[in-house]
Amino acid sequence: MAVIDIANAPVKTGSIYPAPYAAEMAGRWSIRLGEAGGLTQFGVNIVVLAPGAKSSLRHWHLNEDEFVIITEGTCTLVDDDGRHEMSVGACAAFPAGVANGHHFINETEDEARFLVVGTKAPHEIATYSDIDLVLEVRDGAATFTRKDGTPCEGDSK
Amino acid sequence: MAVIDIANAPVKTGSIYPAPYAAEMAGRWSIRLGEAGGLTQFGVNIVVLAPGAKSSLRHWHLNEDEFVIITEGTCTLVDDDGRHEMSVGACAAFPAGVANGHHFINETEDEARFLVVGTKAPHEIATYSDIDLVLEVRDGAATFTRKDGTPCEGDSK
Repeated sequence: MAVIDIANAPVKTGSIYPAPYAAEMAGRWSIRLGEAGGLTQFGVNIVVLAPGAKSSLRHWHLNEDEFVIITEGTCTLVDDDGRHEMSVGACAAFPAGVANGHHFINETEDEARFLVVGTKAPHEIATYSDIDLVLEVRDGAATFTRKDGTPCEGDSK
Repeated sequence: MAVIDIANAPVKTGSIYPAPYAAEMAGRWSIRLGEAGGLTQFGVNIVVLAPGAKSSLRHWHLNEDEFVIITEGTCTLVDDDGRHEMSVGACAAFPAGVANGHHFINETEDEARFLVVGTKAPHEIATYSDIDLVLEVRDGAATFTRKDGTPCEGDSK
């Protein structure tokens, strides 16, 4: 069945970020549309942001293209060029390897949603612009390190 | 600049289908968002359908995943399972290699739009379900044949 049953699609909550960063992700969850539809070459998710929530820590991808279209409410894109208010239908693209750290935050009093598409590369490195953190994903296994390569097991301070 | 300037994004009109099929594509055009944003790993387009227009001849992809979300108006998805009316926010997925021929038609009196994402595979074969036509794309070069592999230069009958 090609039409996706959105109401019954898998939902992802929480965050894999090490402490203390995971706690910053409260109010964000996602609906896994690509997974629901059997896609494997790129991910497609609806990201839901409660008022005050953010999509991620500000980051950029080495090997994966990323595309976003706002589908509900208003989000503020924060990237290296500044702040950009985006409403329904507005789109943004983040080509692989362009070191433009970005995330979306909901600064309104209403829920906001966007659809995000990202390539599923066998090897990926995401670099976090504002903190000393790097994520490496190899064949689905995720490892966080500091930018000098030392392990990051989380810091509960 | 990550935010895409949709008003100035490249637009594609017309069709590469051989005659007489190209004439069936009147009233369809697309806005090349991924190209505008510098993406290379997957295509992202807004497909605009005037009343009565169709997105393509009914087809399926051998090597490329495809995803659609309706962004304006109402479209009817026609695939091997039948007819499915889809309004804004409804989504469909077509995994690579699943022989489910599909297209979208606008049976309303208002313009309809959807966003479509498709992997850019180096080698792709699209098979057209209802007619004797196959499209092979290798490194960007497109060749149409009949299903037995003989060339198809178009038929003006």
